[in-house]
Amino acid sequence: MAHITLPEGLPGISGPLRQFPVTAKPLLLLAETILRGPSSLTMGERETIAAFTSSRNQCRFCMMSHAAAARHHLDAEGEDRCLVDAVIADGSDAASSPKMKALLAIAEKVQEGGKGVTAEMVAGARAEGADDDAIHLTVLIAAAFSMYNRYVDGLGTQQPDDIALYDQMGARLAEQGYVSEKR
Amino acid sequence: MAHITLPEGLPGISGPLRQFPVTAKPLLLLAETILRGPSSLTMGERETIAAFTSSRNQCRFCMMSHAAAARHHLDAEGEDRCLVDAVIADGSDAASSPKMKALLAIAEKVQEGGKGVTAEMVAGARAEGADDDAIHLTVLIAAAFSMYNRYVDGLGTQQPDDIALYDQMGARLAEQGYVSEKR
Repeated sequence: MAHITLPEGLPGISGPLRQFPVTAKPLLLLAETILRGPSSLTMGERETIAAFTSSRNQCRFCMMSHAAAARHHLDAEGEDRCLVDAVIADGSDAASSPKMKALLAIAEKVQEGGKGVTAEMVAGARAEGADDDAIHLTVLIAAAFSMYNRYVDGLGTQQPDDIALYDQMGARLAEQGYVSEKR
Repeated sequence: MAHITLPEGLPGISGPLRQFPVTAKPLLLLAETILRGPSSLTMGERETIAAFTSSRNQCRFCMMSHAAAARHHLDAEGEDRCLVDAVIADGSDAASSPKMKALLAIAEKVQEGGKGVTAEMVAGARAEGADDDAIHLTVLIAAAFSMYNRYVDGLGTQQPDDIALYDQMGARLAEQGYVSEKR
């Protein structure tokens, strides 16, 4: 049971978003901006960073829902939809492109606290084609999911196991995004 | 030196906020909403939770600026302005009210990851007068500063030592808030 009164039947972050619309607005606008706004990173890459960070924080709801969103985006982008699962299982080296390997290594250090990101790691990402926008968004996505994960877990929200539910959620997120009010 | 190109002379989060206005908008709106929006918690209490979380994440810029904001609010609210410093130095038990002791203990568990918040801790906070809004915002503030801290540290931003600078910043934040575009 959640630590505060939340609407029934809304798993993970959906409950607090519905219960507290005033804070939901900036939380959803932030997700839309970093995961779907203009960027040199694809949506598939960005949802992969979100799912990877959530897996490191062991936040089941966020990991499952954003991995599902990543699969739908990767598919639409002509990539292997299982890439996100490989990264979650085996870490940054499982990414297919050298750029994503380097960015996921940065995301990992941000998830751990942030101070572990080094000039060498950033130079390595640049050498593989990451620009300032990609490095900035990688840091911000890993930081933001360190927030969403804590929000979901710290409130003791319900986090179901049903894979089909997350797949539907991921398809909806990939198609409609975060500010459609239909989440 | 920061890991990406940032405007000179803007310490901590101010640099990336100026450089990336598209992501700055939801980041600042979130800070304004959780720290200054409608709540059963005072602004002094909320800035204290923000400064405490930032101190646990060892993010100097966020700790110093939000401790300064907390001092200005506590002063205006007729409280001891040094309460925030006691909490940073000695932990949640240094808070003056039983309610704040209980809420800071929850914030501490959120900073550590979120899963450590227990039903007993939440019941204890309720017994001291915390309502659902206070518990929700405590979790969200501690989660959000786990993001802001990682954003500031993960980008390698410049974080000065000058106490007077933070005091001016805290006064401005306490008076004008986070969305005045003057930060």
